[in-house]
Amino acid sequence: MTTLNFAKGHGTRNDFVIVLDREGILPVGPDVVRFLCDRRAGIGGDGLLRAVRASHMPEWSGRPDVWFMDYRNADGSLAEMCGNGLRVFVRFLLEEGLVDQTPIQIATRAGLMEAWPLDGGLIRISLGHAEVAETPTWVRHAGIEYPATTVDVGNPHAVVELADLDALRALDLGVAPIFDPQIYPQGVNVEFYVARGDRDLQMRVHERGVGETESCGTGIVAVAAAQAAHAGFRGGVDVHVPGGDLRVDLAEDGVFLTGPAVVVAHGTVVLP
Amino acid sequence: MTTLNFAKGHGTRNDFVIVLDREGILPVGPDVVRFLCDRRAGIGGDGLLRAVRASHMPEWSGRPDVWFMDYRNADGSLAEMCGNGLRVFVRFLLEEGLVDQTPIQIATRAGLMEAWPLDGGLIRISLGHAEVAETPTWVRHAGIEYPATTVDVGNPHAVVELADLDALRALDLGVAPIFDPQIYPQGVNVEFYVARGDRDLQMRVHERGVGETESCGTGIVAVAAAQAAHAGFRGGVDVHVPGGDLRVDLAEDGVFLTGPAVVVAHGTVVLP
Repeated sequence: MTTLNFAKGHGTRNDFVIVLDREGILPVGPDVVRFLCDRRAGIGGDGLLRAVRASHMPEWSGRPDVWFMDYRNADGSLAEMCGNGLRVFVRFLLEEGLVDQTPIQIATRAGLMEAWPLDGGLIRISLGHAEVAETPTWVRHAGIEYPATTVDVGNPHAVVELADLDALRALDLGVAPIFDPQIYPQGVNVEFYVARGDRDLQMRVHERGVGETESCGTGIVAVAAAQAAHAGFRGGVDVHVPGGDLRVDLAEDGVFLTGPAVVVAHGTVVLP
Repeated sequence: MTTLNFAKGHGTRNDFVIVLDREGILPVGPDVVRFLCDRRAGIGGDGLLRAVRASHMPEWSGRPDVWFMDYRNADGSLAEMCGNGLRVFVRFLLEEGLVDQTPIQIATRAGLMEAWPLDGGLIRISLGHAEVAETPTWVRHAGIEYPATTVDVGNPHAVVELADLDALRALDLGVAPIFDPQIYPQGVNVEFYVARGDRDLQMRVHERGVGETESCGTGIVAVAAAQAAHAGFRGGVDVHVPGGDLRVDLAEDGVFLTGPAVVVAHGTVVLP
């Protein structure tokens, strides 16, 4: 009987199984990831966060004395980064007493990220840069064609602004939006948002290969960046998603995402 | 910070958070049940199984020296019985060394139930009696009206036989079936099934107030009882649901359900 110690946590209802694997020796292949993330037969989560000392990750050539966030999607595939996952990962390391200095540096497949624990259960993380494309594109959904803005936050986003909250609520995102396959040959995350104020946005997201989710860290940054580009500002933007409330800071030196992150449980699971 | 020890398990992918509360003193009101069963912000499950010594349950007036299965739905409401939940409950008690004699007697809101652990990870449970009504009724779904059989297994069921597996597969149970509100004033669980053989049934279920689920213990019994009444037999019936395979025994002294039950994890959760 093989058992594994785990924790479970979430950031704005984007949830993760977390495994501490200092030396990178635990048997967490795709089958085990799928089992752990199975909401009925396993523990359940949108993905697995494995904490490995960076020196034990062959694919990492940067600083060896940090933690590497080995993020896997629930289907067992590798993923580069996850804004909500990174906050939960940092919360886990803090609670376990595995990090102390601020900023906390975390190695990921998308490079070295930084995090700052704040008051009120919040964690602020760096998310590199958001590149807003100048050429407009379109998204079609439920028979309507919308103008859309392409934003690159390490992964691709198509951002659509809607006129009011009723239109946002009425969307049936059980149906995948249609996009220009020439612009997004690998697919795209599609965000719909309404500006309740210049710096106060409400959004919903259809994640590539997943469907509608209650929160998507890079999508939140993409929406804030698109709005800021249109309105011609920098600085802070509040973004509300079905899973909770976050804040994006668009600064000279990059974009930052601030939001809650909690670890709710610790336990031991029997692998099948 | 209030913490609670929990286990998580499932029977044919009907899953439960399990809490041992020998003296019935833990603070598991509706809010805590909803939190524990929340698949993203909590642990996640279709319901909570609380194990209390029967003598500590004011609503129980039977044998005091057994375990009471205090079952709650994920929405925090009380429930009388759950066939998959009872097997998982018994598995938990067995693994914790809290029961030994066979049959294992378990107090529930539907009365005293019995269970027998079998080889191969299976548990057999008594489920009282299934009453097949003589008067036919109907179920409407996607514009088609089907003849249906009413079966009472402690809770009400409307059972519809379909001609072939293609018809069963094609059903969109994201849409709730329509039933005769005069016959089912409190609503009804609706099962659709195909007889692959006289005693070999494939079914899907739309649970009252929930939607389609991968398994429903009383629904499985209802389908077997309806088929047996039509075909005029007693004895064993194999029933296959999306979540797995079970066996129903229709005996002189009642109905019995046999299926798998596993506890997959143990842990500690921080209550909000």
